Amino acid sequence: MDENMQKLKRGNIYAKIPAVKDKEIFQTLLINKKLKIERIISQGQVTAKGKWLKEARDEWVILLKGAAKLRFRKGSRLIKLRAGDYLLIPANTSHCVEWTSPRQKTIWLAVHS
Amino acid sequence: MDENMQKLKRGNIYAKIPAVKDKEIFQTLLINKKLKIERIISQGQVTAKGKWLKEARDEWVILLKGAAKLRFRKGSRLIKLRAGDYLLIPANTSHCVEWTSPRQKTIWLAVHS
Repeated sequence: MDENMQKLKRGNIYAKIPAVKDKEIFQTLLINKKLKIERIISQGQVTAKGKWLKEARDEWVILLKGAAKLRFRKGSRLIKLRAGDYLLIPANTSHCVEWTSPRQKTIWLAVHS
Repeated sequence: MDENMQKLKRGNIYAKIPAVKDKEIFQTLLINKKLKIERIISQGQVTAKGKWLKEARDEWVILLKGAAKLRFRKGSRLIKLRAGDYLLIPANTSHCVEWTSPRQKTIWLAVHS
């Protein structure tokens, strides 16, 4: 691991929430050779219609505040997420963000590995 | 990645909280070749006096509910954690849990990589 990582990288996931305008906000909290942990803040944003997201790595995600709906291409499965809900989005799994609450900020923690 | 991992492993971090008796409760939420994500539930438990914890892997931890205090051997640094606080405990860093709230359950999410 890089020497730059050898710090007690600290913060509070609910603090210093920036204003959300057009786009979701992605902030990297930790990155090393094995993973990336990020905070994502949404407010009403969704995946562009007809577009599917697919990552080469596993993404484990937990919704900590707010509310959202994810859609999986396979079986058109819809998953509603509320505070505390987590799930694994396996690598190469087509999915999209179908809805995020427009009234409040949704805070996600995502772990890519 | 193992085929067994190819599922939408889902749950809620605040649900199905077991009773905490003598020991902290560790539950693995995800494990793959790169990382292990676990939920830890504490209620009053601390590291045995004079003992230091030290892991071969990085541990990124976020306290989601409750309150705790971690002590780092180097500089005898004390870090108080409240809901939402996260930090990286780099590999091979001696530390201990000096205090966890006895009045409420403390829920941690830990990512080992």
